[in-house]
Amino acid sequence: MSKSKTAAIVLAAGMGTRMKSALPKVMHPVAGRPMVNHLLATVQTLGVDRTVVVVGPDMDGLRRAVAPHATVEQTDRLGTAHAVAQARPELDGFDGDVLVLYGDTPLISAETLARMLEARRAVPAPAVVVLGFRPDQPGSYGRLVMGGDGLEAIVEAKDATPEQLAIPLCNSGVMCIDGARLFGLLDRVGNANAKGEYYLTDIVALARADGLPCAVVEGDEAELLGVNSRTELAVAEGIVQARLRRAATDGGATLTAPETVFFSHDTRLGRDVSVGPFVTFGPGVTIGDGVEIKGFCHFEDCTVGDGVILGPYARLRPGAEVRNGAHIGNFVEIKKAVVEDGAKVNHLTYIGDARVGAGANIGAGTITCNYDGFLKHHTDIGAGAFIGSNSALVAPVRIGDGAIVGAGSVVTRDVEANALTVARGEQVSRNGWAIRFRERMAALKNQRKKEA
Amino acid sequence: MSKSKTAAIVLAAGMGTRMKSALPKVMHPVAGRPMVNHLLATVQTLGVDRTVVVVGPDMDGLRRAVAPHATVEQTDRLGTAHAVAQARPELDGFDGDVLVLYGDTPLISAETLARMLEARRAVPAPAVVVLGFRPDQPGSYGRLVMGGDGLEAIVEAKDATPEQLAIPLCNSGVMCIDGARLFGLLDRVGNANAKGEYYLTDIVALARADGLPCAVVEGDEAELLGVNSRTELAVAEGIVQARLRRAATDGGATLTAPETVFFSHDTRLGRDVSVGPFVTFGPGVTIGDGVEIKGFCHFEDCTVGDGVILGPYARLRPGAEVRNGAHIGNFVEIKKAVVEDGAKVNHLTYIGDARVGAGANIGAGTITCNYDGFLKHHTDIGAGAFIGSNSALVAPVRIGDGAIVGAGSVVTRDVEANALTVARGEQVSRNGWAIRFRERMAALKNQRKKEA
Amino acid sequence: MSKSKTAAIVLAAGMGTRMKSALPKVMHPVAGRPMVNHLLATVQTLGVDRTVVVVGPDMDGLRRAVAPHATVEQTDRLGTAHAVAQARPELDGFDGDVLVLYGDTPLISAETLARMLEARRAVPAPAVVVLGFRPDQPGSYGRLVMGGDGLEAIVEAKDATPEQLAIPLCNSGVMCIDGARLFGLLDRVGNANAKGEYYLTDIVALARADGLPCAVVEGDEAELLGVNSRTELAVAEGIVQARLRRAATDGGATLTAPETVFFSHDTRLGRDVSVGPFVTFGPGVTIGDGVEIKGFCHFEDCTVGDGVILGPYARLRPGAEVRNGAHIGNFVEIKKAVVEDGAKVNHLTYIGDARVGAGANIGAGTITCNYDGFLKHHTDIGAGAFIGSNSALVAPVRIGDGAIVGAGSVVTRDVEANALTVARGEQVSRNGWAIRFRERMAALKNQRKKEA
Repeated sequence: MSKSKTAAIVLAAGMGTRMKSALPKVMHPVAGRPMVNHLLATVQTLGVDRTVVVVGPDMDGLRRAVAPHATVEQTDRLGTAHAVAQARPELDGFDGDVLVLYGDTPLISAETLARMLEARRAVPAPAVVVLGFRPDQPGSYGRLVMGGDGLEAIVEAKDATPEQLAIPLCNSGVMCIDGARLFGLLDRVGNANAKGEYYLTDIVALARADGLPCAVVEGDEAELLGVNSRTELAVAEGIVQARLRRAATDGGATLTAPETVFFSHDTRLGRDVSVGPFVTFGPGVTIGDGVEIKGFCHFEDCTVGDGVILGPYARLRPGAEVRNGAHIGNFVEIKKAVVEDGAKVNHLTYIGDARVGAGANIGAGTITCNYDGFLKHHTDIGAGAFIGSNSALVAPVRIGDGAIVGAGSVVTRDVEANALTVARGEQVSRNGWAIRFRERMAALKNQRKKEA
Repeated sequence: MSKSKTAAIVLAAGMGTRMKSALPKVMHPVAGRPMVNHLLATVQTLGVDRTVVVVGPDMDGLRRAVAPHATVEQTDRLGTAHAVAQARPELDGFDGDVLVLYGDTPLISAETLARMLEARRAVPAPAVVVLGFRPDQPGSYGRLVMGGDGLEAIVEAKDATPEQLAIPLCNSGVMCIDGARLFGLLDRVGNANAKGEYYLTDIVALARADGLPCAVVEGDEAELLGVNSRTELAVAEGIVQARLRRAATDGGATLTAPETVFFSHDTRLGRDVSVGPFVTFGPGVTIGDGVEIKGFCHFEDCTVGDGVILGPYARLRPGAEVRNGAHIGNFVEIKKAVVEDGAKVNHLTYIGDARVGAGANIGAGTITCNYDGFLKHHTDIGAGAFIGSNSALVAPVRIGDGAIVGAGSVVTRDVEANALTVARGEQVSRNGWAIRFRERMAALKNQRKKEA
Repeated sequence: MSKSKTAAIVLAAGMGTRMKSALPKVMHPVAGRPMVNHLLATVQTLGVDRTVVVVGPDMDGLRRAVAPHATVEQTDRLGTAHAVAQARPELDGFDGDVLVLYGDTPLISAETLARMLEARRAVPAPAVVVLGFRPDQPGSYGRLVMGGDGLEAIVEAKDATPEQLAIPLCNSGVMCIDGARLFGLLDRVGNANAKGEYYLTDIVALARADGLPCAVVEGDEAELLGVNSRTELAVAEGIVQARLRRAATDGGATLTAPETVFFSHDTRLGRDVSVGPFVTFGPGVTIGDGVEIKGFCHFEDCTVGDGVILGPYARLRPGAEVRNGAHIGNFVEIKKAVVEDGAKVNHLTYIGDARVGAGANIGAGTITCNYDGFLKHHTDIGAGAFIGSNSALVAPVRIGDGAIVGAGSVVTRDVEANALTVARGEQVSRNGWAIRFRERMAALKNQRKKEA
């Protein structure tokens, strides 16, 4: 996008006390991934050469989440300029454009960042490009004071004159800075203010004092939502979900009730997919062409082929692979198992650690007994096999191709191809027994009533 | 509604490429039926004498969907006037009012169409009545130029003067035309325009040139939503669902969370019905009086009597008939089966191709094994029978009135009325076995760890 | 809050014909409790000394719902002044502040009522304080005519002059009245009006005629929503749910999709709780710290300890107690049962009238058979026990600590600690049988086709 070199510094050291959580703020997920990773994904699409994430102490989980990007630690939290300065060891000698971004502002668009980089191409090139926006309620945001040759100053709301307070253009904090000057400017930022912090905004005044021009690019308030509380997290989730739903329907999927479908950032839908109400996609889900997803389904980390029918109330757990033309019906859970072409698992069934061969039919209430309390074992069901309803297949066990398991069987030994196997008790009936039982119970109930 | 004869021509030949679907555009369903059928249902309420649907090539599915209405094929797509002209063989000699409607504009109300027919009753009668509307953003809509004696012209936005562009009243395309003049006017429409198409709007100018008055009736933008994409389809679905929810609550149903309940166009609810959050009604559902529907239920093509309690997580599939006072509980699927008065099917059960007699109690985990891989068989459970939990009833099989099936039984032979039947294995215990098993497994796990 | 004595009269005698229900209007629930109880709970927080609820004839259910508050019956419905007058026997000699409230206006805030009580502290004290509001559409609301010394009159819309109709401040009906004067003023209210009713609003004019000042306190329209139809009931539910969701996220819970989570008025969430989409909390639910609630769960009257993982599709019914670190998975129903620390019940299981010991593992498809058609019986599963999949435990039955139940067993007799028990049929296989079966069935199908 930009010919000159570009770096990004992502500030992510805050714990976010208003989140009331042990998890670092930027690690809270939106559409199934940490919000900081949304920002990093956006930065990646710009072809940024180097990204440095500024983390706080004891944030190893965050370091892992942002790998392979470089991380630096801000041990003491002395303000945004101090935070940015921590990136110096990783950007030594870098003289391209440096984007300063915030891990808790994950919705910013690549298009907006590209416009900021573009603004640095002006002649004369501004030393600092600030992303401004016009909030509905400017309130306590810093105001951007513009002059004849661009941005003159950023004035904090509490220091602003009434005229300055009337300025609608506000500071988002996001900046694009000349890398050759960044750390020199930062060195001169002081902390003579109420909080004793080093503010990044001060570099605009320092640049202007050096006779360097500064500029503003305007962005949309919606993409500058900062997430500081669970309520704002939910708002961000809602915005991202709306984008994902729109992308799905624009792509040709039919969502009966888009507002009730929750996607993950990486959900992949084929052509002519229909999705009923109340469906959630966790991370890692791929859906093939012509798939019909009925309501109330729950998917995570699974792969679905073409022409598959799913649900209602189907749960595909990690490692589920449902191949072309298969059917997965209601109250069915599939985990770490392959359901091959055209197989049917339609009702009240648990398939775990298993293969269901092509065209096999799994009766209602079938359970693969994959766990013995210590180890997980595998169940292999051959192509065209028929598993009678309410059967238990005790793994490890193999059901051969075309074999039939009688309803209600507990299968503990392998079954040969095309064999019938039955494992159940003999049916014994006692006529009239129910009449005597009911008389006995009625008498018992009466007696209990008398005693009570 | 109208004394004179009325016909309707419904344009439905477009494939709707923006839908990205193999299904003709007007066949996409809204509230469980194709959008064109919504429009046809509205037209029916007006007492229209003859309806002709203009379809495209290879749209046999659409022809079937609109039957018994007449269909004509528009082989080449040469514009709206050309499309309407295809109806000529079906309306030969018809001299009443002809409504021209669009299959992809399904939300138009009968009241609006009645006002258009009424407008044709004016003296002198307008040859063409155009449905106008005032969109929020008139943009590229044709503008309706009004004069002293009604509608003077329809001007396309791209041909309009600045003064004409300022006209807020726009052309919806919907018209009501004097049938005696319709085809004569159409014969004179030319295609000398950028796209080389024959536009229906041109008949206004032609009528005016003949000294015939034209008129405008105004409609609401909301009912003129055209569906050209999946996103617009979802918007139409939302509007129709809002109408259906409002009708349900106005009718005395309690919907805890109306926005999470999805009705079909033909859902029928009795008096004092309550519906919890997250419930979907497919086509063909009738619910009796005083029914309590808990959350997470999924219904299609089924009938529910009075005083029934359903769910949560109940699925009633086609052919399910649940009679007065019965209970259907969680994770229960009923298909092509009658559950008679007061019977209870409360947990984790599949009832298919069956009768559950009045007052019978079906234990948790019961499965009717109705399919042998080739044919479906019937299960008959008598009145007052008690089916113990986790039983499998292997159809065809009859359980007599008042009979008791012991828990965990696999029933393959008929059971007489009031008999007890049990079909399960003998219980054998080996004391201390679990200790030795755990020691063995722990050793095995250790060994595997060492090997790894 | 207020030093002087305070009483509240709650008008709740209306049947609410527009609700189309046999239930008295104020008994319809919002967030799981009758709307009148929402109002009473608000009144309680003000430290009101005496509350009197005016009920209609044959409303014993309502009397019980509002107990221990006093109730009086309004036998004939002769207007609001008449309704308030029924409270006289219960407030004989009371000379503090009397709030007059409406049972069908449940959203009014304690803060607003406190401001009304505060207004009565002015010097000179107003005899009547009326709660005013500024509706978007004043329409038929009575207008509050203000003068130099406060409220001069309440003018009904139909009696108002054009100048008065332009007044934006309207009468909500809610009042705070000098108890020493209330019943004297009521005695003088007449019914010489179109409907022949006694209107409470008339006491303002009567007080002014006595030279007593009256005052207005302003409230917010949103909290004055009156519920007269099922549609308004749904609106009230939506407002209360929005408040409850906001309180949950402000309290540190993560709600992926807050708009799809339905709380009860008394839901208690611990710290760092996460809740997926589509979850409903009925009354009486307490959730511990660090609990992960996946989507599609349904809870009522249950207690969940710390660190528990629930769902998706978990149903906890009344009396379920899930202790620290336990897991309850998909399509699982727990009723009147304790699941002790760290136990796992992960798939397709019904646990009712039972104890699941600490660390026990309940296999998929397990059913506690707790009901014999007459009585409920108890199942006791020991700590560390392992119940093989698809087992039926026929209560009353005890599974000892550390015991193992083989998959597919029907357990009818107690199992000693650390024993293995198996209760299932012998597995018998017949090779090649499936080939012959398929040939036979294919022939049968062919024959049926020929016959048809």
